[in-house]
Amino acid sequence: MTVRVGVLGATGAVGQRCIQLLDGHPEFELAAVTASEDSAGLPYSEAAKWRVDSPIPSEAADLTVRATDPDEMPDDVDLVFSSLPSGVAADVEPDFAEAGYVLSSNSSNDRLADDVPLVIPEINPGHLDLLEVQRDERGWDGAVVKNPNCSTITMVPTLAALDQFGLERVQVSTLQAVSGAGYSGVSSMEIIDNVIPHIGGEEEKMETESRKLLGTFDGAELAHHDADVSASCNRVPTIDGHLENVWAETRDDVTEAEVEDAFRAVESLDLPSSPDPLVEVFEDPSRPQPRLDRTLGGGMTIAAGGVQTTPAGIQYNTLAHNTIRGAAGAAVLNGELLQSEGWL
Amino acid sequence: MTVRVGVLGATGAVGQRCIQLLDGHPEFELAAVTASEDSAGLPYSEAAKWRVDSPIPSEAADLTVRATDPDEMPDDVDLVFSSLPSGVAADVEPDFAEAGYVLSSNSSNDRLADDVPLVIPEINPGHLDLLEVQRDERGWDGAVVKNPNCSTITMVPTLAALDQFGLERVQVSTLQAVSGAGYSGVSSMEIIDNVIPHIGGEEEKMETESRKLLGTFDGAELAHHDADVSASCNRVPTIDGHLENVWAETRDDVTEAEVEDAFRAVESLDLPSSPDPLVEVFEDPSRPQPRLDRTLGGGMTIAAGGVQTTPAGIQYNTLAHNTIRGAAGAAVLNGELLQSEGWL
Amino acid sequence: MTVRVGVLGATGAVGQRCIQLLDGHPEFELAAVTASEDSAGLPYSEAAKWRVDSPIPSEAADLTVRATDPDEMPDDVDLVFSSLPSGVAADVEPDFAEAGYVLSSNSSNDRLADDVPLVIPEINPGHLDLLEVQRDERGWDGAVVKNPNCSTITMVPTLAALDQFGLERVQVSTLQAVSGAGYSGVSSMEIIDNVIPHIGGEEEKMETESRKLLGTFDGAELAHHDADVSASCNRVPTIDGHLENVWAETRDDVTEAEVEDAFRAVESLDLPSSPDPLVEVFEDPSRPQPRLDRTLGGGMTIAAGGVQTTPAGIQYNTLAHNTIRGAAGAAVLNGELLQSEGWL
Amino acid sequence: MTVRVGVLGATGAVGQRCIQLLDGHPEFELAAVTASEDSAGLPYSEAAKWRVDSPIPSEAADLTVRATDPDEMPDDVDLVFSSLPSGVAADVEPDFAEAGYVLSSNSSNDRLADDVPLVIPEINPGHLDLLEVQRDERGWDGAVVKNPNCSTITMVPTLAALDQFGLERVQVSTLQAVSGAGYSGVSSMEIIDNVIPHIGGEEEKMETESRKLLGTFDGAELAHHDADVSASCNRVPTIDGHLENVWAETRDDVTEAEVEDAFRAVESLDLPSSPDPLVEVFEDPSRPQPRLDRTLGGGMTIAAGGVQTTPAGIQYNTLAHNTIRGAAGAAVLNGELLQSEGWL
Repeated sequence: MTVRVGVLGATGAVGQRCIQLLDGHPEFELAAVTASEDSAGLPYSEAAKWRVDSPIPSEAADLTVRATDPDEMPDDVDLVFSSLPSGVAADVEPDFAEAGYVLSSNSSNDRLADDVPLVIPEINPGHLDLLEVQRDERGWDGAVVKNPNCSTITMVPTLAALDQFGLERVQVSTLQAVSGAGYSGVSSMEIIDNVIPHIGGEEEKMETESRKLLGTFDGAELAHHDADVSASCNRVPTIDGHLENVWAETRDDVTEAEVEDAFRAVESLDLPSSPDPLVEVFEDPSRPQPRLDRTLGGGMTIAAGGVQTTPAGIQYNTLAHNTIRGAAGAAVLNGELLQSEGWL
Repeated sequence: MTVRVGVLGATGAVGQRCIQLLDGHPEFELAAVTASEDSAGLPYSEAAKWRVDSPIPSEAADLTVRATDPDEMPDDVDLVFSSLPSGVAADVEPDFAEAGYVLSSNSSNDRLADDVPLVIPEINPGHLDLLEVQRDERGWDGAVVKNPNCSTITMVPTLAALDQFGLERVQVSTLQAVSGAGYSGVSSMEIIDNVIPHIGGEEEKMETESRKLLGTFDGAELAHHDADVSASCNRVPTIDGHLENVWAETRDDVTEAEVEDAFRAVESLDLPSSPDPLVEVFEDPSRPQPRLDRTLGGGMTIAAGGVQTTPAGIQYNTLAHNTIRGAAGAAVLNGELLQSEGWL
Repeated sequence: MTVRVGVLGATGAVGQRCIQLLDGHPEFELAAVTASEDSAGLPYSEAAKWRVDSPIPSEAADLTVRATDPDEMPDDVDLVFSSLPSGVAADVEPDFAEAGYVLSSNSSNDRLADDVPLVIPEINPGHLDLLEVQRDERGWDGAVVKNPNCSTITMVPTLAALDQFGLERVQVSTLQAVSGAGYSGVSSMEIIDNVIPHIGGEEEKMETESRKLLGTFDGAELAHHDADVSASCNRVPTIDGHLENVWAETRDDVTEAEVEDAFRAVESLDLPSSPDPLVEVFEDPSRPQPRLDRTLGGGMTIAAGGVQTTPAGIQYNTLAHNTIRGAAGAAVLNGELLQSEGWL
Repeated sequence: MTVRVGVLGATGAVGQRCIQLLDGHPEFELAAVTASEDSAGLPYSEAAKWRVDSPIPSEAADLTVRATDPDEMPDDVDLVFSSLPSGVAADVEPDFAEAGYVLSSNSSNDRLADDVPLVIPEINPGHLDLLEVQRDERGWDGAVVKNPNCSTITMVPTLAALDQFGLERVQVSTLQAVSGAGYSGVSSMEIIDNVIPHIGGEEEKMETESRKLLGTFDGAELAHHDADVSASCNRVPTIDGHLENVWAETRDDVTEAEVEDAFRAVESLDLPSSPDPLVEVFEDPSRPQPRLDRTLGGGMTIAAGGVQTTPAGIQYNTLAHNTIRGAAGAAVLNGELLQSEGWL
């Protein structure tokens, strides 16, 4: 049975990726797209300056863009993906939830709220049950689920794998692609032949979101993990694919082989967008690389490599496609989990 | 009084930078250039495919390239800069030293040898006295002094500044420019829209060389520093300028202001290539950036920024021009120290 | 019925693309791969440093690399793709043809020889009959067919479309991707933040090959087209996809609409690798663009746009994927034509 | 005697270059900077996000930004450089001229107006006398002089050199740097690993401005040159430096040597910013290249190379620094000409 879905903020960079991923999706059928007032009433093909590297799907091209307002959403839509700017999302998402829509949102607002599940389906699917708390507290018929920031998603699956050894301290340096800032986020004069060693708010997101994702939900409250996490974030001249250098200290001593085995043992789910394996481990220390490895598993695989033990803990590199696994694909996968767990 | 100097391996990327830096040097006069057998006998302008972004200096252009052999070096040359491939350097540098030449070498061979001083003049000038041990042990009239690897030089001046607080542990992620691998070292197909998270041997160089540079020389033996150093090295699509994300743990607690003051307090030397200030500290957390800041102080300044204290220690970024401060300029500056200390 | 095929020079950049394109091919089955002496005897997965952005096909990975010698080729191989360096190809291709193998070669040697068909299947399939002349003159049981240079292929389909209006003069400026020079052909220090306005031999190839492709074969001799062709070739920092600015003067006056219609009217063939449409015409003058449009039709489409009439003739832009349509895919498509026309 | 100067639109990319070029200028002293209302009242160092690769000049840093209004300009300013957006400039420049200020403007408005001189000092200094017509017609005490578009300036000096042979037809393909579109003009997602074969309005500017620059002024009217000019404009991933492939047809037959001699014979002027030689001719066909050659003559040299004769006329490449020779430096040089010719 097909779920009819809508996409809020469908003309932006993440919105376009979302439209691309929904094309031919086995469970979801695109029924509505929204954008800012200026675009309302236009055909999607005209409103979106399509920049993804595959042609615009024909069923999306012909949809009429709607205003981003629950009153404009067709009643038979059961699931709504949101990739709105966080300021807009903070205003609008509660309205949709109140109107009964279930939202899988990539927007950064409210990710840390006590009653909002922040979910990577293969890692912490149980956190989805926070929705009961959410509905109780907010009196919503609908619901809001969040996926984490792209740089957080890239490292958390491997950190989760290491937590069996007692994760105590994490340091991570990121080399992030320009698409993470949106289509106009990084000008070419800023980044050609250059690196920018700062991304506003990114370090804090990585530090706080990862502790929430690795935390424990007892059915009533979510206790965040107590590992120290320290991030240093850099923008580099790549189009897609965030690469991260990680050091992780664990309570137990572990060998490189144990680490690689733990990575490989992270299980994928039986959902359309969950890749198998979830974590691809490279023996070649020069891999993974963004351009060569970002599209593994349709862009949903977490790639890891360069595992070694050092005085500063386990050291390794990890890579994920930031606008697929790190954004649009993350939201779609959360939608699949919502469907599979009976929340729609 | 002018010192006549020679350059070994003058046609390579570092050799060309060296020729550029010697142009108009107040103390040194270029008297001889060497290269591989194929180039011997050719005018330098023909042997070197000149690729530096300033025109080839006329006094260098007309020199006849010599074979890299002490018998071919003019007797009145007192100081020889070496930027040979390390394999060649290991064979040839001892011959030059035995023949009485004093070498300031950028080649990586023998940097860790007990009787070879590894020197950044503003940081550990006293290590130069290891040359007495060297001459005793090897029976040379000449001498060999080394400068460290480009990625090591970039971080050591700031680490040295922190050692007053008891440096215990260092972790560093590097974002290194392609020029560090030489002119043909990184193909464009490898690096456009990409990052390579591995540089062979680089991590070990950073770990071992920095401990030697920060070590203590008692007049007889050099004790390496005992801080743990762990490096993760990446190649990024920038032409020049290595940027590094550093975490440094110290025994004492320190504030961000104390760290910045310590950086600013590192003293430059009264030598032509030593910039003042040695360390330029940026308040803007998005600086330093390779393209904007690599040519500060003629490429000899160490730039730092983004200082913050974290659970994992002091966190900051540092940047230096890898083929100037990190290679050719480092060798020239060591030459200036040798002259000033009376070793020529 | 499946044709068993071999690939000469299978470890290089074009060879790897060829292996990628043969994976899952409906008519061809990969039976043998060759490389230089050093690699002979190794599994292909080990000999080839695989750098294409999809995983190495498993049937190729396990093949043992052979020496590039007809005596080493299995007898049941009927079709051989060659992407050898042209110097090697000049030596070896005649040996394979003499030994009875039919070669579809991407190597540049002999492209202009009187009895060697130079073929783009959708444009000049009739030139294939030159093989009768070739076999007569050389006494071969096998045969050699060539595809043109990547920059030539990119523009010739549209020029062929304009020849109905009397093509008299062509000027073309190219913006060529680095992959056209092979994996190590362009160093990153040469091309980051740069353009190289010269590619050795490329201008002449475009001028002579295009006249041969547009020429007329009367069953005995091939008369080259008499249009003047003048090319100016540039290397730019793109990975794949050659973009070309073309001016074409024709005897007849034509409108922009007639030009676009002529482009759209070029027919594709009923062969697995021939895309439909062959020429995709963009109305948006900022398209085609290499990164967005190079993979149209699996990399086999010729994209065109920016059509306008000027005092200097018809002006337009054209784009093709240089290592697919311009090299490996061109050879595979020629193989499909050879099979369909009964030459195997 | 020093001329006090003002800069309108001083915080933009061209404005910053202008401030950089005025630092230490032998004739001009920076007295006032203007920007949009938002910045008025701020110190320049705060209003301008300084992004040029040399530190902000101290005398500029401390100036208070003024509104862009002649009433706000100090009376003792005699020369005003304008790098305003063309829409703003069209409104404001006449007010400044009416108020008595002499403007050297880089803005594109009014470049083709009959009574506005469009000048490259070394090429058509006599066009400056159009100012008499301008003052007569407009009743201004001040004046407005324009420099051409960056892509036009790059090719016109060499075209002027060829006009002695009877210039009849010009075709040019450009490979333009991102800085030509201003700091935020080209997003990194548009241009990394890509080319954009269209720049809005640029082709027409090259076609019309070059005919005006090469035209003849008889003291009353300016007759534009009648050569056909056809341009095809591309944006490529370089920071600075426009490279252009030119074909020029002349009435007379010429040899490559005659062309190179004609280029070398273009005379520079005895003005501070006019380089000697004006045109640097390279024998190596792979030069000039943007990264290696854009800073020749402080960024004011026109570089040329690859000269050859073809059936389509003389073919060559030319390069200039687009924000120096092509914008800020062009305006400064026009200011020097205005001063030297007694217009201030």
